Amino acid sequence: MSKSVLLLPGDGIGPEIVAEAEKVLHKVNEQFDLGLVFDSAHVGGAAIDATGVPLPDDTLDKARKADAILLGAVGGPKWDGLEMAIRPEKGLLGLRSNLELFGNLRPAILYPQLASASSLKPEVVSGLDILIVRELTGGIYFGQPRGVRELEGGERQGYNTYVYSESEIRRIGRVAFEAAQQRNKKLCSVDKANVLEVTVLWREIMEELSKDYPDVELSHMYVDNAAMQLVRAPKQFDVIVTGNMFGDILSDEAAMLTGSIGMLPSASLNSDKQGMYEPCHGSAPDIAGQGIANPLATILSAAMMLRYSLQAEDAAQAIEAAVSKVLDQGLRTADIMSDDGRKVTTREMGEAVLAAL
Amino acid sequence: MSKSVLLLPGDGIGPEIVAEAEKVLHKVNEQFDLGLVFDSAHVGGAAIDATGVPLPDDTLDKARKADAILLGAVGGPKWDGLEMAIRPEKGLLGLRSNLELFGNLRPAILYPQLASASSLKPEVVSGLDILIVRELTGGIYFGQPRGVRELEGGERQGYNTYVYSESEIRRIGRVAFEAAQQRNKKLCSVDKANVLEVTVLWREIMEELSKDYPDVELSHMYVDNAAMQLVRAPKQFDVIVTGNMFGDILSDEAAMLTGSIGMLPSASLNSDKQGMYEPCHGSAPDIAGQGIANPLATILSAAMMLRYSLQAEDAAQAIEAAVSKVLDQGLRTADIMSDDGRKVTTREMGEAVLAAL
Ligand SMILES: CC(C)[C@H](C(=O)O)[C@@H](O)C(=O)O
Ligand SMILES: CC(C)[C@H](C(=O)O)[C@@H](O)C(=O)O
Repeated sequence: MSKSVLLLPGDGIGPEIVAEAEKVLHKVNEQFDLGLVFDSAHVGGAAIDATGVPLPDDTLDKARKADAILLGAVGGPKWDGLEMAIRPEKGLLGLRSNLELFGNLRPAILYPQLASASSLKPEVVSGLDILIVRELTGGIYFGQPRGVRELEGGERQGYNTYVYSESEIRRIGRVAFEAAQQRNKKLCSVDKANVLEVTVLWREIMEELSKDYPDVELSHMYVDNAAMQLVRAPKQFDVIVTGNMFGDILSDEAAMLTGSIGMLPSASLNSDKQGMYEPCHGSAPDIAGQGIANPLATILSAAMMLRYSLQAEDAAQAIEAAVSKVLDQGLRTADIMSDDGRKVTTREMGEAVLAAL
Repeated sequence: MSKSVLLLPGDGIGPEIVAEAEKVLHKVNEQFDLGLVFDSAHVGGAAIDATGVPLPDDTLDKARKADAILLGAVGGPKWDGLEMAIRPEKGLLGLRSNLELFGNLRPAILYPQLASASSLKPEVVSGLDILIVRELTGGIYFGQPRGVRELEGGERQGYNTYVYSESEIRRIGRVAFEAAQQRNKKLCSVDKANVLEVTVLWREIMEELSKDYPDVELSHMYVDNAAMQLVRAPKQFDVIVTGNMFGDILSDEAAMLTGSIGMLPSASLNSDKQGMYEPCHGSAPDIAGQGIANPLATILSAAMMLRYSLQAEDAAQAIEAAVSKVLDQGLRTADIMSDDGRKVTTREMGEAVLAAL
């Protein structure tokens, strides 16, 4: 029984890093006889250039039918002048919402080989291993009404709506509690319940859910404090669960604690465990086309894809071991370069992972 | 001509730290013949306990009439069960909005004497001096409609509204551009203009304003990237301007980069330069009543008050010099304690500043 993987290279460094991950996927496909079939499509700025819209029907169709999706990145200054509705980001947001990929898993892990890349003191981050569970299809990202209106007197006013229903909170809560059960059984729910009513409901539902997970220790933290605690003592966290906007901010902050955001994968899952996988870093337009981007976050995203959506744990572990091996060999792309590293290009890094498999 | 200062000790460690700042203010009042007269009132949990509401009319009246306000902190677990409308935080938010204190200045400065307190590597933070300008009376904190409603089918939905008008953006923008003119002439406006319409308007107005400040270099950054860049390379920033919610998160993150949030003051100003001054840290209920809290952020807030609202620059500088001196002497409260420091109580720290004046 074959399984289908859709590749969406996207913009900026996207095509370069997805190309390396694709080679790795082909290799494990053979090695482990996975029966994967591949297809690809345009999304984001690349789709705008090709078709005029950031998420063409053809891409959405293919995405719906795929068992899993591997995405590079979207966006870049070239399309920054476009109006909101047809910006590259709408391609990504459209995929998330149309496929109901509400469960976004963003690990922030410090690779021991790269400990010195962090801007934090080694004792503060060594061994860091946090999982941020971010709600991805609701909240202020998708809330209605939204827009810019004219007030009496003629001045304009911009507005967006931050909204969550009980069921939306409950389903992301369950993802987070289950993830915590697999890990160190500590879940911190982040909100702003001292100011925002929507997050009072969030906190209430998390409390209610915690009765179903007595083995998980639930705590609550205001988002401003969470932003501080991540800097002060990040190892106090195991799993963090939060809404779309706070999750966007905190997951990037947490990723940067490791100093190597070029290493961090992510998964976005729906209730059928269909998933879209992408590196945490963005399209990095400043280095696009130079062949120097780090492909490892995308390769590790492919490993997550094998694990969560393609039931190929062995292949996932093989890729992760290969990545660890190339790091041990001292190979480093520019973003994770250190004094004793050997600098390699995007392609050289990809080839090294292939060779290590 | 006398000037009036209203002291609002508030909750938790508030009374302890405001008491020390009060002594310092009395001293400079004499030394510099400032003609300050003092009054005090309840706010937050203390006001709830005394009167049933977090912002009694009497307190608001006194606040309106005062030339400047010095606040300790509000909130604590004791009042966490109360409904939103009568929580301690509403006392603080009510003061901000009734007095139209829209311009919140939050410096994040690393004191050279405390460099080792940071969780970041010394080379990343040494010499750090950022000013965050946060809009304080608008955005999602005050947006209407807000609440929890019942959907068809019976499940509840929480909602808040993120809203800014052109004039609200313009007035905080001017504060930020002017602050940048006094400093290194670099202003970074933080938004989420790739997703939120309200921040598209924000960015547009900032661009428009920049024509009036040709000497200031304006840049824009998405909030997720800003949360990362603050960790990666905070010294790239001079002044940051952003809305209420993003400002809440980023100013706390920035403050924590210094490792000594117990040192950081803040000012909240309206168009008449009337202001409320408070430490960046909160009410710290876990150490309240023990006499070990750090009073320096409150004492430095008093200095900011003298500078911005009471036209007493000399007195402000004298206080800042005294604080620097006690740090040079090695005096440290528990929160900033280091191997070679001499541990002191809240009162001892206050007395030391008095002696240094
Ligand atoms: C590109 C952008 C719309 C997106 C987001 O804000 O969700 C990105 O920052 C992310 O976190 O995946
Ligand atoms: C206490 C709370 C309402 C307040 C805020 O969110 O503004 C605080 O966190 C602050 O930053 O002053």
